[in-house]
Amino acid sequence: MSYKLAFFTPIIGLLGLLTAFLVYLFVKKQDDGTELMRDLAQQIHDGAMVFLKREYTILLFFLAIVAVLLGVFVDTTWMTTIAYISGAFCSMLAGFFGMKAATKANVRTSQAAATEGLEKALTVSFMGGVVMGLSVASLGLVGVGIFFYFFNDPTMAKYINGFAMGASSIALFARVGGGIYTKSADVGADLVGKVEAGIPEDDPRNPGVIADNVGDNVGDIAGMGADIFESYVGAIIATIAIAATASIATLESVLNPGIDLSSSNIVNLKHNLMALPLVVVAFGLLCSLVGIWSVKIFKKIGPAEALRYSTFLAAAIFLVGSYFIANGFGSNGAFVAILSGTIAGVLIGLVTEWYTSENTWFTKNVPVLRVAEASETGPATNIITGLALGMESTIIPLFIIIVATLMSYKFAGIYGIGIAAVGMLGTVGITMSVDAYGPAADNAGGITEMAGLGDDVREITDRLDALGNTTAALGKGFAIGSAALTALALFTAYTQLAKVEVINLIQPLVVVGVLIGASVPFFLGAKTMTAVGKAAMSMVEEIRRQFREIPGIMEGKGKPDPSRCVDIATKASLRYMIVPGLVALIMPPLVGFVLGKEALGGMLAGATATGVLMALFMSNGGAIWDNAKKYIEQGNHGGKGSEAHKAAVVGDTIGDPFKDTSGPSMNILIKLMSVVSLVIAPALVAFGEGILQRFF
Amino acid sequence: MSYKLAFFTPIIGLLGLLTAFLVYLFVKKQDDGTELMRDLAQQIHDGAMVFLKREYTILLFFLAIVAVLLGVFVDTTWMTTIAYISGAFCSMLAGFFGMKAATKANVRTSQAAATEGLEKALTVSFMGGVVMGLSVASLGLVGVGIFFYFFNDPTMAKYINGFAMGASSIALFARVGGGIYTKSADVGADLVGKVEAGIPEDDPRNPGVIADNVGDNVGDIAGMGADIFESYVGAIIATIAIAATASIATLESVLNPGIDLSSSNIVNLKHNLMALPLVVVAFGLLCSLVGIWSVKIFKKIGPAEALRYSTFLAAAIFLVGSYFIANGFGSNGAFVAILSGTIAGVLIGLVTEWYTSENTWFTKNVPVLRVAEASETGPATNIITGLALGMESTIIPLFIIIVATLMSYKFAGIYGIGIAAVGMLGTVGITMSVDAYGPAADNAGGITEMAGLGDDVREITDRLDALGNTTAALGKGFAIGSAALTALALFTAYTQLAKVEVINLIQPLVVVGVLIGASVPFFLGAKTMTAVGKAAMSMVEEIRRQFREIPGIMEGKGKPDPSRCVDIATKASLRYMIVPGLVALIMPPLVGFVLGKEALGGMLAGATATGVLMALFMSNGGAIWDNAKKYIEQGNHGGKGSEAHKAAVVGDTIGDPFKDTSGPSMNILIKLMSVVSLVIAPALVAFGEGILQRFF
Repeated sequence: MSYKLAFFTPIIGLLGLLTAFLVYLFVKKQDDGTELMRDLAQQIHDGAMVFLKREYTILLFFLAIVAVLLGVFVDTTWMTTIAYISGAFCSMLAGFFGMKAATKANVRTSQAAATEGLEKALTVSFMGGVVMGLSVASLGLVGVGIFFYFFNDPTMAKYINGFAMGASSIALFARVGGGIYTKSADVGADLVGKVEAGIPEDDPRNPGVIADNVGDNVGDIAGMGADIFESYVGAIIATIAIAATASIATLESVLNPGIDLSSSNIVNLKHNLMALPLVVVAFGLLCSLVGIWSVKIFKKIGPAEALRYSTFLAAAIFLVGSYFIANGFGSNGAFVAILSGTIAGVLIGLVTEWYTSENTWFTKNVPVLRVAEASETGPATNIITGLALGMESTIIPLFIIIVATLMSYKFAGIYGIGIAAVGMLGTVGITMSVDAYGPAADNAGGITEMAGLGDDVREITDRLDALGNTTAALGKGFAIGSAALTALALFTAYTQLAKVEVINLIQPLVVVGVLIGASVPFFLGAKTMTAVGKAAMSMVEEIRRQFREIPGIMEGKGKPDPSRCVDIATKASLRYMIVPGLVALIMPPLVGFVLGKEALGGMLAGATATGVLMALFMSNGGAIWDNAKKYIEQGNHGGKGSEAHKAAVVGDTIGDPFKDTSGPSMNILIKLMSVVSLVIAPALVAFGEGILQRFF
Repeated sequence: MSYKLAFFTPIIGLLGLLTAFLVYLFVKKQDDGTELMRDLAQQIHDGAMVFLKREYTILLFFLAIVAVLLGVFVDTTWMTTIAYISGAFCSMLAGFFGMKAATKANVRTSQAAATEGLEKALTVSFMGGVVMGLSVASLGLVGVGIFFYFFNDPTMAKYINGFAMGASSIALFARVGGGIYTKSADVGADLVGKVEAGIPEDDPRNPGVIADNVGDNVGDIAGMGADIFESYVGAIIATIAIAATASIATLESVLNPGIDLSSSNIVNLKHNLMALPLVVVAFGLLCSLVGIWSVKIFKKIGPAEALRYSTFLAAAIFLVGSYFIANGFGSNGAFVAILSGTIAGVLIGLVTEWYTSENTWFTKNVPVLRVAEASETGPATNIITGLALGMESTIIPLFIIIVATLMSYKFAGIYGIGIAAVGMLGTVGITMSVDAYGPAADNAGGITEMAGLGDDVREITDRLDALGNTTAALGKGFAIGSAALTALALFTAYTQLAKVEVINLIQPLVVVGVLIGASVPFFLGAKTMTAVGKAAMSMVEEIRRQFREIPGIMEGKGKPDPSRCVDIATKASLRYMIVPGLVALIMPPLVGFVLGKEALGGMLAGATATGVLMALFMSNGGAIWDNAKKYIEQGNHGGKGSEAHKAAVVGDTIGDPFKDTSGPSMNILIKLMSVVSLVIAPALVAFGEGILQRFF
């Protein structure tokens, strides 16, 4: 196969975007219910769009500064700047499309549940997610594909790196900002509504409920989408960068024996290896389309089966096709790496499911049940047990990542680490669709409750929501796994592009780099947790004030003012996202220019190790608490209102920022720091030794 | 100066031991109060001794196995085995001496408070701690000094490493076992007594109170003592190892210009640099004795001032003397390193104090007050804020460690990293005395309460206890700082002895090593937290059972059965200490022989980075929660019994295993893994490439 095959990727991307648009029209033409429902949906939609608009306004300002800095200090051809802006723009567009569809799908899912039942409700909410899934994959293909068309010469490939940095920059702010938004609203609404006033979740009397529902969209749709978009383009671009800068030895390690490695053929071989990730993911998008279509058939078996089998079908076709594609480009080893990445993704999902679900394929003594049991002796034992299990849950996924990395390296050298990440993310079109379906179903539950559609309808949306929680847990495991592999790939690409042959851990500056890197996730965790705590406390005060000051609010006569809560969450999240975002961006140049590019390599390794562990710890810990609470609410250990339940609610509240703010932020952090390092690598080479390095 | 000066260190060590014995006699001859007090003290003493006996029995069995393995596989001269057993024996002896004195001092402090007032009570409890402090320093000097006498030849110095490994092995089990003991008893007794039954802390009706008081001794005295003993001998031995294997370049980097580096003088220079740490710490012990003596004078100003000024006095004399000693051995650079280490120790203490005390030199908006405020909105916000601040509190201490490392390296090369750790630990005789005073005062408070000595006496012991909490926080910061520097020194010594010149982070196996290393602290955290959770739950059930089944227990008529609680805590702690202990011991040989000695280096770097951060996070977080609760109990935010207080109690309960079990275990973990690597380094060299390494 010729590398020119990759020139078609933008076209396949456009095909995906067209499909996304058709799906959006399908969702939009569904019945959106009663006037009250429309009104509620409109409030959520408006809240989400206001947030997005304000967030993007701040980001545009920030992007402009970074774009200029890149053009002046890093790449004076300004090509990197153009790629940077394009990557940021594609990421924002994916977030916008996904949110638009999700805020249409939520109310229509409620209405479908009310009038047509489970199957139709599943279809509508899933299609809401599909727009996000397809947008992420397609915009990635269009963007990277176009830049590859222009910069496929190995010496020019470095310009493409800016695209990944643009995507990463947006991702960090979207994840951190969205995460703070969703959890400050959630925690605030729950603390006053459920705990103090004793009214149910999503009760329309609670002024924080709209903000909570907006939060599901800005955090779990836009934030998650930006995260996966970043992994997706990061993995592809890291692989392209590794191929473009590959040595003869690297080429030898990845290509089939017998391939002509004479110097006249080298550029051609590099071209092929650069094109391979693009062709693989373009094919992956087609597989995703088949998978999405197959939901139609599988949903007759059941909703959980429909989502699971369609994902597996897409993955199976993807693997078969990848074999032929890799072979066609002359590398069976690359296929083994793709296979390792894909299997690792599935295994991490299964382990995540075991740790965070109450019902799994291995039912005895699962973590969720242990935390539920510990709730009987109060919140302290609930939390101690949850923290312990969260820490424990890091070990096996990390081991899976290690094995996948070593396998990929064994069969395809350092190129294998990149293409393994690409393999894990190949069918992102469907995995992201399944993931984004959850918040839409969650929102539908909220609207059902607020609009008073009755218990029958609520039961359907609850079922969809419960399924959404499982897919969300899987999605988070997948996001962490892909972030880890992508970060390793970007790290490898960085060392190549920075022309660092040895990062010697015996040198104190490198050890210092590792220590600094390891501490950044702790800093990010501290800042994001503090932000949620502070924002939630403002929210608590506002809701308490409304309960106190609006006459008749508890009797359903006085009208709450949700827009004030939306405003508080929006302002707080945008305010608190700045510092963590800037730190992640500034650390790589700071360490690189002051301590040197070897210390920067050490920092990336330290940050990746700690970041992955903290991400697993916090995401899984949070999910365990969440599901332990749900398990008790099903009537176990005394059920709702028991002391055990109160203890579990405390655990769940702590778990909220763990799993939806701080944990996921780690993913972005490690990718962003790696990709910034990759982009500034040529500038570091030009600069020479770090300022402090000259003293040692 | 000649290296033979170091031959006198065992004599100074014996002098220290003699002083410790005299102090012990002084403590013992104090009045031990009423019969009830004697009985309570006896129960605590017996509980502690039973624990120690059972723990040491298990450890002897384990030591025997490791000793044989070392003799058969690592060093067939069996010299390492002898050193290993000696190190373990000295560590156990230090723990035994310290516990013996502390369990005498507690009741005598109560009696002194009752009959003679604050000043005398301070003297008695402090003297209880002095026995521990002097035992740690003196036994370290005697042990390492004797081995140095026999193995001061640079080619034989490696045998001494076994001594550090022996100390480390005991330390891990003592810290983990003691930590589980103290916190399962504390959490269990509090959950049922304070929270459920509503009776005060240390109430004699609570059958868990004796176990809680035993726990203070086995955790905070024996556990802490073993931890510091390990750092102390680890730092000395790492420095000896670095000097013994130093290259010409290393010698050049540490010695004053103009010193004869001709090959005939090399052995002499190495001898000097090997002797330097011993001479420095021997002098440090003398300074500690002066400091201890000066408490007599300073206590007229106030108890806090007495402990602080005496420590500063010892440190000041130590620094002046070290300058002349370092100079005498031909290295001004070594003095700069010692100075860096000492200053770093003080600074970390100050930062720890700022983070964990309510009253500090910078009073506005300190973390403790923020957590207390967050308690007003319930346990969830208390815990979110505490976790966030705990994470945040890692950054500045880590930065201090980094600066101290770089300074030491700049002025004395890799030797500087070792001697900086020695500098930090030089006056351990007094710092450990101050630290061990806390649990004795805490115990005195418990005995005062149980024996019903009245509010006036309790006020005195409470004041001593509050001071003890501050010194404990400082001690923990100091323990972490010294562990970090010691681990870095041991890591450096390992690379020298394993003849690893390059640990290249670009190689996937090294990255894998870093990932594995980073995950071990999470595993240890999970296991120790789970152990406390489980053991506390058994304790809760037993105390509940006694409250239910013993007639008249709540009215003070029925007699509780504390021995059952002591037994539960003893069994649980011994049972749960095994797995974490074994993992820490097995990981270095496993990674070293399978993935290779470079990957092992990566593992040590990863473990040190994450371990230090987790230690700071958990220790400081726990102390913040503890003091936030105490601050509320002083009448703030509604005082005792308010909702804020209940929330703060939950935070404190979670903080208990954080600060006294899991956090401190990290210190040992990173030192133990480094020292095991150092001991097996020659075997790794003989073995060649790792098993899996041969495939890559």
